[in-house]
Amino acid sequence: MYIDGLECSNYDRVVLLELRAGGLSCITPTLAFWENATETMDALGRWLDLERENPDLIRIARTAADIEVAHRDGVTAVLLGTQNSSPLEDRIRFVELFHAMGLRVMQLTYNNQNAIGGSCYDPSDSGLTRFGREVVQEMNRVGMVIDLSHVGERTGLDAIDASDRPVAVTHANARSLQDHPRNKGDELLKALAGNGGVIGLATYRNISGEWAESRERWCDMVRATVDLVGLDHVGIGTDLSRRSGEADLEWMRKGRWTRTVQYGAASPKRPGKAAPVTWMNSTADFPALADCLRTHAGFDEHETAQLMGGNWLRFYHQVLSHA
Amino acid sequence: MYIDGLECSNYDRVVLLELRAGGLSCITPTLAFWENATETMDALGRWLDLERENPDLIRIARTAADIEVAHRDGVTAVLLGTQNSSPLEDRIRFVELFHAMGLRVMQLTYNNQNAIGGSCYDPSDSGLTRFGREVVQEMNRVGMVIDLSHVGERTGLDAIDASDRPVAVTHANARSLQDHPRNKGDELLKALAGNGGVIGLATYRNISGEWAESRERWCDMVRATVDLVGLDHVGIGTDLSRRSGEADLEWMRKGRWTRTVQYGAASPKRPGKAAPVTWMNSTADFPALADCLRTHAGFDEHETAQLMGGNWLRFYHQVLSHA
Repeated sequence: MYIDGLECSNYDRVVLLELRAGGLSCITPTLAFWENATETMDALGRWLDLERENPDLIRIARTAADIEVAHRDGVTAVLLGTQNSSPLEDRIRFVELFHAMGLRVMQLTYNNQNAIGGSCYDPSDSGLTRFGREVVQEMNRVGMVIDLSHVGERTGLDAIDASDRPVAVTHANARSLQDHPRNKGDELLKALAGNGGVIGLATYRNISGEWAESRERWCDMVRATVDLVGLDHVGIGTDLSRRSGEADLEWMRKGRWTRTVQYGAASPKRPGKAAPVTWMNSTADFPALADCLRTHAGFDEHETAQLMGGNWLRFYHQVLSHA
Repeated sequence: MYIDGLECSNYDRVVLLELRAGGLSCITPTLAFWENATETMDALGRWLDLERENPDLIRIARTAADIEVAHRDGVTAVLLGTQNSSPLEDRIRFVELFHAMGLRVMQLTYNNQNAIGGSCYDPSDSGLTRFGREVVQEMNRVGMVIDLSHVGERTGLDAIDASDRPVAVTHANARSLQDHPRNKGDELLKALAGNGGVIGLATYRNISGEWAESRERWCDMVRATVDLVGLDHVGIGTDLSRRSGEADLEWMRKGRWTRTVQYGAASPKRPGKAAPVTWMNSTADFPALADCLRTHAGFDEHETAQLMGGNWLRFYHQVLSHA
């Protein structure tokens, strides 16, 4: 079973067909970067339409069991997620309301500090706030994945500590293997693994660096990450952005919070949209990645299955049930 | 089984205890008059809290069967509703999202024309718009009560015509018995009955006129309405506003749409909040109303049961299931 822990594509039937071409059993798309409650509901509504229009390809998942059923039926489960808590508009009560509408993954912060905590890009990280602690507990209660990918290191550590359930880094890499503010330090990764969490390793060029140069090198990074945090705690979170253009990139980086140039995970030297890596151009490349984990990186069948989706599935079983 | 089709109280434990004192098996409160999507979600969240805080008194109902179970368990089912389609913010997709969050009753317009159609107070009624027709069909599909109480007469007739399921006037009276723009003409009431709908008769003084002077007179109005539309199509919709004060009245009448004085269903001669009728001061007075329907208005046990809640329950069974 192949699972992609995080994507930010613009989905249409072409991209959904790529999910099937890759044999994906579950993906998490991004319904919000900076969007407020109403705008996120627009995205939720579009996904409900997309599901109705493509019943042969996808099915929105509300439980881990839904993912297993979709897998059996040969369609891709979609576990709806946002990369920011902006849809909450700082309301504790909105956690269960968005859960009722189908949302199952929420990143505590995107690139900017908010009422919950600090981001990976701001100069100082407050740690988890009082409101943040309540949100973590409420996400635990209703059964929603707490995503720390873009969250600041200290806030992330606090969230792991505050959470009664495993938490996720859906799309990032180990900072000790690739130094980048978006990647995660060893202390955090060990704490994550310690509470049963999973990190989805990203094929995104800007945070994979030279590991992205070939499928083999990237599989070496998977091996190195497994050595660091343990086989049970590593999955895939490509951060793929199919059908996404300059306007999308501009929105991701600048939202409505600035008039100045922003680079996100890129840099002044290479400011544009990073070209997708050739060997993970779309989810259709998942089977080749699995092959490479076996043949090049030396993982056996069972280990490869865990890395390609089994760990995410176990994690979703632990996290998505109602407390 | 007693059911109140529409109330606009400010609910706290005191008011919830009145529901139990009256033996109410179901009520519909008002979660929005002019509120947008986010503000209505605030109200939804507060109701979920209220349910958690008062499990011995209330339970939010999502189906007609939920009402029957609540009745059996001796708690009051709450069928969540709004008196405006303002929560939709003109988005067809929000119908199913608010349904997912628990909303089961929505009035197409409150006192003002909107993108769906005309109101009972505006000088001219457009009838149901193209968007309005889509909303009616979508409410049919997901299983949500279409409420026409404050809707303009022509728009109301159009909505009955466009709806594949019975529709409701949750709180109004027959205009031929009490002439008021908020009350409904015979043509509409006959069309409503013709498609299986129910009108909840209001004890609200401003639209009951002299019928409100005593419980007996009001029961005479029930009898006259039954003669007009048939026993199967009449229920109760008190429009009670417990714990509601001048600020609430101001919001109901003026929302954010005007700076001028507005009277709602009142008049320049009697502009203030109408005193509740003495014999229906709260839902605790429901049993006495049932007695009066029997002893004064001559309805038998079965007929009284239909009027006091049975008709609403049948209607909810027909309307709330998913298409």
